[in-house]
Amino acid sequence: MRGIFYGVGVGPGDPEYMTLKAVRVLGLCPVLAVPRTGGKHSEALEIASKAADLSGKEILFLDFLMTRDEKSAARRHRELAGSVAEKLDAGKNVAMLNLGDPSLYASFGYLREILKERGYETETVAGVTSFCACAAKLGVSLTEARLPLRIVPGDYPELDRELASPGTKVVMKSGREIARVRRAVERSRLPAAAVENCGMPGERVCACLKDVGGAYFTTVLVGEAPERKKKPGSETEENR
Amino acid sequence: MRGIFYGVGVGPGDPEYMTLKAVRVLGLCPVLAVPRTGGKHSEALEIASKAADLSGKEILFLDFLMTRDEKSAARRHRELAGSVAEKLDAGKNVAMLNLGDPSLYASFGYLREILKERGYETETVAGVTSFCACAAKLGVSLTEARLPLRIVPGDYPELDRELASPGTKVVMKSGREIARVRRAVERSRLPAAAVENCGMPGERVCACLKDVGGAYFTTVLVGEAPERKKKPGSETEENR
Repeated sequence: MRGIFYGVGVGPGDPEYMTLKAVRVLGLCPVLAVPRTGGKHSEALEIASKAADLSGKEILFLDFLMTRDEKSAARRHRELAGSVAEKLDAGKNVAMLNLGDPSLYASFGYLREILKERGYETETVAGVTSFCACAAKLGVSLTEARLPLRIVPGDYPELDRELASPGTKVVMKSGREIARVRRAVERSRLPAAAVENCGMPGERVCACLKDVGGAYFTTVLVGEAPERKKKPGSETEENR
Repeated sequence: MRGIFYGVGVGPGDPEYMTLKAVRVLGLCPVLAVPRTGGKHSEALEIASKAADLSGKEILFLDFLMTRDEKSAARRHRELAGSVAEKLDAGKNVAMLNLGDPSLYASFGYLREILKERGYETETVAGVTSFCACAAKLGVSLTEARLPLRIVPGDYPELDRELASPGTKVVMKSGREIARVRRAVERSRLPAAAVENCGMPGERVCACLKDVGGAYFTTVLVGEAPERKKKPGSETEENR
């Protein structure tokens, strides 16, 4: 019998933000597929290893390309799906680790589509998103009643228009783009706060965007909801 | 010593979507504050009781008002904060349960603000959101690279404009508004899918909005990302 391909959200950083389901599913899978783009370190594997017993697991590194060329990216996705399929054909369940949630700006979706089309069973295990963890860390709400929440990637070209729309805005992975994001937030005249590396080593809570250093995992919250509820310093730090 | 006021996300329904942290924090708290609006049943308490040992816990029901009158709502929030404060003053930690994540359209924020202002320590424990669980259940991605994700409450007045904007749209708690939501989605000509009561009793996965019955917890996904990745039937159901 063929194995099942699982996409497992390990949450944003704090290993305690892994779900009971993520821990159980990792237990079911002899093979862990670990995405990386250059280098050997995987934050997702680090997190999972602190919450679940991964001894004896076979690690299958998935080397994604850092490219915007769609053809080469798609070719690499097919190659990586092939290497996962080999394990599934051998009857092994494979869990692909994902920071945060596997449905949000995650590479799991590409492999899932290819493997689904080839008739493999897949299952997604949702996780805690980084923006929920950042709001918790800042002690603010993400929403106002009856207003939207807008999740925007840091490299989104139409940032000004987005910031001018009603509701709270979350700018994800904004580290590399922080100078541009900071200027857009200044033009919007909205209050903002940020967390760098939420729940990871090097975490920094920034009540003001001027304090942001430029870590890749920088989440910026913009709008009235964060401001109204922001009282820095009165949240406890029981788990740090 | 005063107790700490925790807001604990118990996830969208499936008790296995509770985090390790949520389970641990419930263990630390002798008092569980359980929001309700009419009736005695609490979905959040039901979920928590399946994942954590709640025997011997003192339950403090928080009766929120179903009103749009801001003055009476604010007065009730102060009263409820007062009843939580009594427990904190007695040195007891209090955990307020929240479906999904406590920073997203949750009543925890109101009490947190009042109690913070009165000098109490508060902490937020993030949870898995219903829209991440719905995307996982449908086996689709919520996002396309470089495009936003828009989270919109079902009663948002400017739904047409939101649906016409780039990126995937999630319409939350759209059950009561389903007729209006369905018409707006039809006008937008975008693909859509929905999950009623995701992870709860009475869960229904609806590949088409015509199948939606009108349960309060109905999450609608609208846009190209869900469509491109949608292959109903090929996700496994190992946990149902």
